[in-house]
Amino acid sequence: MLSLNIRPLVRDEFVRFGEVIEINGAKSHSINEGTTERYHDLANVDVSDRKGKALINIFRGQPRPQPIEIRMMERHPIGSQAFYPLQLHDYLIVVADKVGFPNPSDLHAFRATGMQGVSYRKNIWHHPLLVIVPNHDFLVIDRGGPGENLEEHFFEETEGPAVLRV
Amino acid sequence: MLSLNIRPLVRDEFVRFGEVIEINGAKSHSINEGTTERYHDLANVDVSDRKGKALINIFRGQPRPQPIEIRMMERHPIGSQAFYPLQLHDYLIVVADKVGFPNPSDLHAFRATGMQGVSYRKNIWHHPLLVIVPNHDFLVIDRGGPGENLEEHFFEETEGPAVLRV
Repeated sequence: MLSLNIRPLVRDEFVRFGEVIEINGAKSHSINEGTTERYHDLANVDVSDRKGKALINIFRGQPRPQPIEIRMMERHPIGSQAFYPLQLHDYLIVVADKVGFPNPSDLHAFRATGMQGVSYRKNIWHHPLLVIVPNHDFLVIDRGGPGENLEEHFFEETEGPAVLRV
Repeated sequence: MLSLNIRPLVRDEFVRFGEVIEINGAKSHSINEGTTERYHDLANVDVSDRKGKALINIFRGQPRPQPIEIRMMERHPIGSQAFYPLQLHDYLIVVADKVGFPNPSDLHAFRATGMQGVSYRKNIWHHPLLVIVPNHDFLVIDRGGPGENLEEHFFEETEGPAVLRV
């Protein structure tokens, strides 16, 4: 079984997949009589195709058994999807930068801190939410509206799962 | 000077102004092989007028001197604006449900917990971000695009500020 190397999440390495949403390294300007810094437009909310609109949701995630077995990936063909953690815990991200169906050797794994969100671009293969601690909540901005926006791909038995050891 | 009564933020009382974004009292369904609860579509992201689109930003707020003096209100005529706190601290909300220009006697003040976000509907008068602790961060989902989306109203000197004592 392929064991994935987990790297720290860094903006420049993630640019192929979408945006890292974080204050660190972002530009800001002062508003509200100097009482607020606005870190402006940190991710591309790309949800308007086919009469879509942005939704605000909360996802509450639970950990999977260790080592985590990655057996499938998913993507959203007509909408970006952004996650921002609501408690200060690290979490995991698995993505693939493949146009066709990915297999375990196409995967990239990152460890995000509790002060980093991510936004997956349309059509970027990613694994569903992977948390490390119980009841880890995320604010999720994704797409609602007509049209099928979920595609799932399960690895072949012969490919086996990829595994993550945290 | 008018001293505002601060009430706990409750979904049913806020419905005139927009939505309270919270897990408490919201419906959810299970996704991701049972590892995630999705609390779906918790606020109306209403930003598409005049070719607008949703933005994801982070606001870092600093407290104002106590007692807090409310001397102005603002509203966004062509876009909703949602705030969700990223650290577990209470914060304050001041709104008015007046179509024309509000004065201090039109104001309503609420204390939100660190597990409650809010979304202001288009054209709802509200005060800019009011935090109680230093460096309180919020994920903010609002509107970008053409058109003027900010209107400010300053109270007359004779009306005086309204004050908040936390």
